[in-house]
Amino acid sequence: MSNFDQKFTDVNQLGEFNLIDRLTSGFDLKNKSSILGVGDDAAVIEHGKTNLLVSTDLLVEGIHFDLMYSPLKHLGYKAVVVNLSDIYAMNGTPQQITVSMALSSKFSVEALEEFYAGIKEACRIYNVDLVGGDTTSSPKGLTISITAIGTADKKEITYRSGAKPGDILCITGDLGAAYLGLQILEREKQLYLNNPGIQPDLEEQKYLLERQLKPEARKDIIRIFKDAKLIPTSMIDISDGLASDLMHICKASEVGAFVEESKIPINQEAQLMAIKFQMDPITTALNGGEDYELLFSIDESDLEKIRLMPSVYIIGEIVKKEDGIKLHTTGGNVHPLKAQGWDHFDDKT
Amino acid sequence: MSNFDQKFTDVNQLGEFNLIDRLTSGFDLKNKSSILGVGDDAAVIEHGKTNLLVSTDLLVEGIHFDLMYSPLKHLGYKAVVVNLSDIYAMNGTPQQITVSMALSSKFSVEALEEFYAGIKEACRIYNVDLVGGDTTSSPKGLTISITAIGTADKKEITYRSGAKPGDILCITGDLGAAYLGLQILEREKQLYLNNPGIQPDLEEQKYLLERQLKPEARKDIIRIFKDAKLIPTSMIDISDGLASDLMHICKASEVGAFVEESKIPINQEAQLMAIKFQMDPITTALNGGEDYELLFSIDESDLEKIRLMPSVYIIGEIVKKEDGIKLHTTGGNVHPLKAQGWDHFDDKT
Repeated sequence: MSNFDQKFTDVNQLGEFNLIDRLTSGFDLKNKSSILGVGDDAAVIEHGKTNLLVSTDLLVEGIHFDLMYSPLKHLGYKAVVVNLSDIYAMNGTPQQITVSMALSSKFSVEALEEFYAGIKEACRIYNVDLVGGDTTSSPKGLTISITAIGTADKKEITYRSGAKPGDILCITGDLGAAYLGLQILEREKQLYLNNPGIQPDLEEQKYLLERQLKPEARKDIIRIFKDAKLIPTSMIDISDGLASDLMHICKASEVGAFVEESKIPINQEAQLMAIKFQMDPITTALNGGEDYELLFSIDESDLEKIRLMPSVYIIGEIVKKEDGIKLHTTGGNVHPLKAQGWDHFDDKT
Repeated sequence: MSNFDQKFTDVNQLGEFNLIDRLTSGFDLKNKSSILGVGDDAAVIEHGKTNLLVSTDLLVEGIHFDLMYSPLKHLGYKAVVVNLSDIYAMNGTPQQITVSMALSSKFSVEALEEFYAGIKEACRIYNVDLVGGDTTSSPKGLTISITAIGTADKKEITYRSGAKPGDILCITGDLGAAYLGLQILEREKQLYLNNPGIQPDLEEQKYLLERQLKPEARKDIIRIFKDAKLIPTSMIDISDGLASDLMHICKASEVGAFVEESKIPINQEAQLMAIKFQMDPITTALNGGEDYELLFSIDESDLEKIRLMPSVYIIGEIVKKEDGIKLHTTGGNVHPLKAQGWDHFDDKT
């Protein structure tokens, strides 16, 4: 009677992206309103002059968040923001969200109200409406599923697939801080578990913690793009780490890229904390993830438009596929860029 | 550091619907495209001449399904169908779905392919496209989140809120069979656990099992409505049970209703099995749930349109709110109708 009588392929062997590829292969799009299915930050659905963007995320307690150090209000806020980030990454404007939760009996109504206060705050800041969801019980822990719906002018949508050799590669904001914030929280958790009487002083790490616990999506940049009449040739948000997300662009666009190490923006607090943790700051920037900054490419001819754009940094160039994806180090070396992003299939307990 | 230091209100005290009401109160709709938020089968989003319908469901192993007796292919099929049912319940046509999964390491790639084969089959039968999703690991079990997106002509959308006194109350198909199918499967599971050598013969209960394991949504009825130019005044799909779902219509429409017991359609196999389980067949029809039939009201003047409609049965009438929600029994008595639908907060372990 069981589905598990035989031993088959372990999902860990495939990894998340290969698993999705395998499971969703052979699903053809039948409705003419389905413009783009699986494989970008959001699905694209035709609807008159504007297109509809749909993105969905599943967040699982013990995998994506730890309630030992994630205040529920922050968690609600972050859960919404990471979804909206996917809509912005398509150069769209989020409009609605649905929020579903499966929760165990350890959660009180008041705890859930805290969670929803965070959702509400994100809805207010990003001007989106909560329009639906599903709430149910769970044998263990909290699982959150959020779907974001947005719109974009057909001509303005940016896919992962539009980068071409010669394009300039840019990033918004700075990288690595969210990952370092997580390291601090994990360290404090261990200290607390070993000695519950301890009072952590995290005031000095405020920036890093905020990047981890209450990240923002780059709504501002999308506005600035519109004002500057700039449409990137490709775009993705940094959720898995610069290296991994750049590979998504290169794979979808069938191109290569080089990244100039010295151009990767890293906040000073992150620099110092990385060294304190005996980590290479550049590694946290390349592979840390959860930055929710935008990685995008623009046509060479648009260079003037971004030169003075706030929070936008040129970090490299799109090259031909056969030239690979490479990092030009500060020391003058050239290394192939490797993705070591967070694969949540590795975290399984 | 913990969110759970104090004891607060238990979610069980509120129940699912009250909890959602409490958590989502104070969320105003800000975008003019957000026509309807929380509180119906699907959210309604304006988009040109047609409106967009969005519905989402979260299914949790051990709460909504048991892999001891749910084949993964059927589970994939059912997970899609129950979502599409919500779109049909708005008199809409589903077009796209997103499917997210959180899964533990007990699932092999081949098991997941079975699950996706069921999803694919549902996509084929109902002509919808899989356009996105998220796949991640989970510390325990399988959680499925599906969002369905559909369209409907603005003038044809049926809300829960449009019923008015004098309207005729109708139901499609028959009720109670899915619940009885579940009872059979639960009984067989116990027999199997007590004696794993046993070979169950479920051939005779095929109809009941199929209603539970591989239900269908009433795509056909929506087509028939269109052909007959019939727009119900209110509509909902039967997921929690006739009694509970009728109450949703009555609450949203601010009306009462009476249901004629003898008119409630019950399949003969369900009649016999209910008696075998020493249950009242009418109770399984009123409170069983998971039938995914459509409960709807129509204006009196549309009576002729439904008289000969296949699978459509008149079961009662909408009355004034102060007249309550009542069952006229076969014995000539009148009882207030009580909802004892599946509240998954009661099933918590």
